[in-house]
Amino acid sequence: MSRRLVVALSGGVGGAKLALGLSLILPGDELLVVANTGDDFEHLGLIISPDIDTLTYVLAGIDNPVTGWGRRDETWSFMDSIGALGGEDWFRLGDRDLALHVERSRRLRLGQSLSEVTSDICRRLGIGARIVPMSDDRVRTRLRSEAGWIDFQDYFVRQQCRPVVHELAFDGATSARPHADIVAALRSNEVRAVIICPSNPFISIEPILAMSGMRDAIEASGAPVVAVSPIIGGKAVKGPTAKMMRELGLEASAAGVATRYGDLLDGYIVDHADADGIGDVGARVTIARTLMRSLPDREMLARVTLDAADALALLR
Amino acid sequence: MSRRLVVALSGGVGGAKLALGLSLILPGDELLVVANTGDDFEHLGLIISPDIDTLTYVLAGIDNPVTGWGRRDETWSFMDSIGALGGEDWFRLGDRDLALHVERSRRLRLGQSLSEVTSDICRRLGIGARIVPMSDDRVRTRLRSEAGWIDFQDYFVRQQCRPVVHELAFDGATSARPHADIVAALRSNEVRAVIICPSNPFISIEPILAMSGMRDAIEASGAPVVAVSPIIGGKAVKGPTAKMMRELGLEASAAGVATRYGDLLDGYIVDHADADGIGDVGARVTIARTLMRSLPDREMLARVTLDAADALALLR
Repeated sequence: MSRRLVVALSGGVGGAKLALGLSLILPGDELLVVANTGDDFEHLGLIISPDIDTLTYVLAGIDNPVTGWGRRDETWSFMDSIGALGGEDWFRLGDRDLALHVERSRRLRLGQSLSEVTSDICRRLGIGARIVPMSDDRVRTRLRSEAGWIDFQDYFVRQQCRPVVHELAFDGATSARPHADIVAALRSNEVRAVIICPSNPFISIEPILAMSGMRDAIEASGAPVVAVSPIIGGKAVKGPTAKMMRELGLEASAAGVATRYGDLLDGYIVDHADADGIGDVGARVTIARTLMRSLPDREMLARVTLDAADALALLR
Repeated sequence: MSRRLVVALSGGVGGAKLALGLSLILPGDELLVVANTGDDFEHLGLIISPDIDTLTYVLAGIDNPVTGWGRRDETWSFMDSIGALGGEDWFRLGDRDLALHVERSRRLRLGQSLSEVTSDICRRLGIGARIVPMSDDRVRTRLRSEAGWIDFQDYFVRQQCRPVVHELAFDGATSARPHADIVAALRSNEVRAVIICPSNPFISIEPILAMSGMRDAIEASGAPVVAVSPIIGGKAVKGPTAKMMRELGLEASAAGVATRYGDLLDGYIVDHADADGIGDVGARVTIARTLMRSLPDREMLARVTLDAADALALLR
């Protein structure tokens, strides 16, 4: 089979779970994970890439199973100390996690690209699959609430998603170049499937899709595009997806997410809990258990998703 | 008494012990500690000032009593993690200690001066005395060994002082401006004493004295200059002082240190162990217990040193 490469678009926590599932059933060279960088930011003078970090930790098996972000066996001495020195402490950085931010920031300041640093660190941590930032250019997600435009991490962490979101913007997205390896992969005629992981569509997937040429490249790849719903039983597993949908005037449902992705989707994986109300979403629907609690859950959902993609490919 | 201000020149560990002693017997506004910055360096993209750090931790009472440097109740998760990411791990940075380096580096990159950052952090940590970097300009101690010139921390930490030192240089010292507050204090006619703490003369005190105008300003202050010997019983309490003296062709003794300071000294405090061999060092010698194991030791040596200075002032 010449079409061997699976391209997965992912944000952090939920997306990383499916990416891990895919990495368990695919050889490393058959999985390319495109990481959202719209929520990257500078903090304490460090350059932080939360979604790359979560994907890295999850795929390396050193993630924190309690929080869903950060590293396992974490300690918090740095955070305990920074506040007393006048430093900002609203964004929690564990001591182990900090090593990645410090080392990455150091290398970026030396002129290495985000993708080079990411690739090297993945290699050092023994990750077989590739994690590629959606772009080495700067894209920053911002949100408009009652109080005006705010930066993503201000909304997401400092204000804990409390502001009502009226609009989103991805600063820099239209001028940012999708990473050359992503474009090359999509053009290669070797893509087996494009998987949209169960991440927040607005803040994790749409920054990726907002870059010039990205949607076109996905559609032109000839590969089936299959999304996994981040909504289960009308609720987000974690994070503000459902709240945000309501605030943006959309239906907070699995069907609502599919509508948002529109004609990009060929296949859509929804949970049993959402099977009744799903209706016609313009994509072939597969009903599955989508809640990923255990490692076998992640692997099983990855298989279901790939099977759905492969079935769609046979129909072409 | 108009002459109320004590100016103490200090490096790290040994000097900080006497500085703490001084801080215990003087009101905060009567002690100005001049910190060596010749061993400052960039590491992991962070700007590190080891002597300022040690002085800060010691005077704030949060120093590590076991190592003599760094913070107490320290954890090492960051160090445990950085190596696996390809980062350098030869210079040990504790998780709590790291908060100071990250926060200082952030502020320096925003354009604040080293002295501003130091002053603010000292205030936040409740330090009454002032710690002032010898200069806000860059000075870097380098050493020439068999293998050529090497940076200070390379010699001191990475190579653990093993190279034989033939020569020292303080890059930038002649063009660096001594901090304005130090110059103003020395010119104020209000200096009670200039204390040279029991630090390594070559790498802690001489970078301070090497700056243009510094020696002259000290001599012109009209205050007695009293040094405390860093050599006890012919040995350094800690660090390479004695080894370095031998390598530079000097006598590794309390007298040798006094000779090195030359006519700058008015008074010299030496340990009982060195009383016999001290001879004429061109300064009034006071014999005392100079080993500072306990807090009362520090306070007592500070009293002895100040008393010696005050006695010298009465002779003028």
